[in-house]
Amino acid sequence: MGKQFLEITEKKEVEELIAELSAKIAAEIAITMKTEKVRLGDGAGEALGRIASTDIFSTLDIPPFDRATVDGYAVIASDTFYAAEDNPSLLIVKGYIPAGEFPSPSQYVEKGYCTGISTGAPLPKGANAVVKVENTSDYEEGGGEGGEGENRKIKTVKIYKPVAPAEYIMFAGSDIKRGEKIVVKGTRLTPRETGVLAACGIREVEVRKKPSVAVISTGNELVAPGTQATTTLEPGKIYDVNAQTVCDSVREVCSGSGCVPVFLGVARDNLEDLSAKLNESLAKGADVILFSGGTSAGAGDLLPTAIERFGKILVHGVDIKPGKPFVLGMVQGKPVFGLPGNPTSALVTFNLFVAPLLRRISGDYFYNGREGKQNLERRKKVKATAAVRIFSEKGRNEYVLVKVKVNQARTKPAEEGNLLAYPILTGSGAITTLSNADGYIFVEKGKEIVEEGEEVEVEVFF
Amino acid sequence: MGKQFLEITEKKEVEELIAELSAKIAAEIAITMKTEKVRLGDGAGEALGRIASTDIFSTLDIPPFDRATVDGYAVIASDTFYAAEDNPSLLIVKGYIPAGEFPSPSQYVEKGYCTGISTGAPLPKGANAVVKVENTSDYEEGGGEGGEGENRKIKTVKIYKPVAPAEYIMFAGSDIKRGEKIVVKGTRLTPRETGVLAACGIREVEVRKKPSVAVISTGNELVAPGTQATTTLEPGKIYDVNAQTVCDSVREVCSGSGCVPVFLGVARDNLEDLSAKLNESLAKGADVILFSGGTSAGAGDLLPTAIERFGKILVHGVDIKPGKPFVLGMVQGKPVFGLPGNPTSALVTFNLFVAPLLRRISGDYFYNGREGKQNLERRKKVKATAAVRIFSEKGRNEYVLVKVKVNQARTKPAEEGNLLAYPILTGSGAITTLSNADGYIFVEKGKEIVEEGEEVEVEVFF
Repeated sequence: MGKQFLEITEKKEVEELIAELSAKIAAEIAITMKTEKVRLGDGAGEALGRIASTDIFSTLDIPPFDRATVDGYAVIASDTFYAAEDNPSLLIVKGYIPAGEFPSPSQYVEKGYCTGISTGAPLPKGANAVVKVENTSDYEEGGGEGGEGENRKIKTVKIYKPVAPAEYIMFAGSDIKRGEKIVVKGTRLTPRETGVLAACGIREVEVRKKPSVAVISTGNELVAPGTQATTTLEPGKIYDVNAQTVCDSVREVCSGSGCVPVFLGVARDNLEDLSAKLNESLAKGADVILFSGGTSAGAGDLLPTAIERFGKILVHGVDIKPGKPFVLGMVQGKPVFGLPGNPTSALVTFNLFVAPLLRRISGDYFYNGREGKQNLERRKKVKATAAVRIFSEKGRNEYVLVKVKVNQARTKPAEEGNLLAYPILTGSGAITTLSNADGYIFVEKGKEIVEEGEEVEVEVFF
Repeated sequence: MGKQFLEITEKKEVEELIAELSAKIAAEIAITMKTEKVRLGDGAGEALGRIASTDIFSTLDIPPFDRATVDGYAVIASDTFYAAEDNPSLLIVKGYIPAGEFPSPSQYVEKGYCTGISTGAPLPKGANAVVKVENTSDYEEGGGEGGEGENRKIKTVKIYKPVAPAEYIMFAGSDIKRGEKIVVKGTRLTPRETGVLAACGIREVEVRKKPSVAVISTGNELVAPGTQATTTLEPGKIYDVNAQTVCDSVREVCSGSGCVPVFLGVARDNLEDLSAKLNESLAKGADVILFSGGTSAGAGDLLPTAIERFGKILVHGVDIKPGKPFVLGMVQGKPVFGLPGNPTSALVTFNLFVAPLLRRISGDYFYNGREGKQNLERRKKVKATAAVRIFSEKGRNEYVLVKVKVNQARTKPAEEGNLLAYPILTGSGAITTLSNADGYIFVEKGKEIVEEGEEVEVEVFF
């Protein structure tokens, strides 16, 4: 009695399988990747979050010239030696060099002279150090030696503190040398990298095309929102939820800069329609194919059958709740996911099994050795306290959807773990479960009850 | 001796000021907000991350009809009472209702009868419960009572387990009622909300326009990247870094769905140019104005002076390093920030003082009582161990830029605190500091040394 359509795979096994698969596919995409050029400069945002497809080298020295790093006076260091509060060095000032202008030849600094200089301005010839304005006294105007008119007046400055050669100078090329590698192939371009590219005057970079994710909803009952007036929604039909949730989740996985969802419409529950959508996905160059619905035991062996027509099944059923009828196959080197039709189950399995793969292939984990950085930014776990007793089904690895609230009874901020997790009891079939949940907690097979007050780790939804 | 152009404000005071200001401006934007309509359905991504500007109500019941939540048989519950393994109820099957189709009138269920039904299919009239297929035996075809031909054959099913009325049925409107509020005004639309909207067949929603952030670089030495060939960069000039870094940071603050940067070009270091850019920002409807550069002591009182022409200065100088010459003013109700010109200082002050305001006004913190959710998702702090001894300047609140690496010597994953923080020693003037840093640690005034092995909290950069 009782039918078993699924060969249940252990959750851990599926995770390992997907980690392995992700690495393989990411490596393949890294080799066979298509690229495109995006614009930089003038604050254009096209390069942000994209993955550099080549090493990038600087075509100039940064800074391009020896520059002052403080406001003050460009001097010959030895002219300031032994200077002190009660024994200032006195130097004659040869004008002032503002940032953005180049010293005139007459501003050459020789012994006994100096030039006023602003932060970022080029050092005049002859000078080998800069004295901070704080360690000098204001200009003093003395009478010219033997001069007559206003234009013969000589400006002098008192220096109260010695500087060593090279002090407060950033030498040309000391930051970045012409020809130096500034971005390693495969790096995700954050605002720091785009800033470095801007510094080098680079206006266009070659990046990997974003991986494309085909999204297909299946079910005879599904109607695309807005295609029928709500008042005339045909009897027995419902609006397709997963197309929207799955496409938007794909967009959110890497903050909108990772994968691009391509919605291919609703497939009917028959082998021909599913096969056609599979082929359409491949023809359109999809890197990943996501079906939702049509994986339950009823009409549900259709997708696995369609996958087996062209490729092979790796997983059909996982020992988790919700999300048991999850399917994973490979067709022509592309992973094909079958997510359950229930919106909540679809979202949970997306987060558990699809998101890690998308993150990986979109370059969020990296193959260039800059370890630690990108996955830090994607951490989505928070600690919270179970607000009430939470029950889990016996013998099931259960993901309990929760709403997270700040504990108003305590005064600590949310960041310090002052959070309460409330289970959502409407079940995975309800649409409202979706909008009420902030994330889920995992209750392992052996455990049936999470006690009130117990600490739980909430995996926050995208 | 020594000049002091800045009236230094305490870091904490600035943070409180900005929190207060953010709340005020966010409230104002919430009231005076401009709105626009964005498309949903067919997986379109326009609504994702946007802030609903009105309450949104369902125009239909969800589900629109009483539906089966499992595959099985629609029955009259009392027909199954006392059913058991060794005493199955026997019912005559009136065909099958697949999902997406509506029962025909002949599929009316009366005593002794049932109808095959798939998950998601509408319940036929007369039935008040569904029996799971697992608790039945396969169809059995018996000879028709008095029938002759094939079409007189009668299908029957054995039921081994009783069901109570309403079991495995989701009633029309039990998830969402027609007229029920499904999205509260001011909610950020995540994939869960867009899914709920899709469920209700909603194709278009009204959202708040994204706040606009004017970005202006200042400095006579600055050239926009790409506007001069790199080989002919004029002597004394450098490429503008901050336009790119600041614009891209604005984009990243809320995962690309928050504020829109509008780059207004480079202002020269004079009062007229700065005033003109201020006015241009206001004329273009900027909600926030971000200058970078031009705030050091040298040419640096120009921006505060320009701000005071039209509004007032709130902060001029903060007791942090880097970032001391930070400026905050208000002009016609809009906050005007002056970030230091050094790229690293600009990025640190952006993260500390600008990002919280942008997050708040872009609706990432919310004024609709759904506390806890959005700021959870923006957590960017990680714990790490100081890899070497880290020195901080005496008497300064210092942000030490660090690179974070996974501790290869240990086997724990990065998520469990197995991270090492290395200080970056190139200084805030260097461009390479930017691309090498993953974030920064805060070393308070009184502390000068962070010992090797000490635990530190790294604020990760956008």
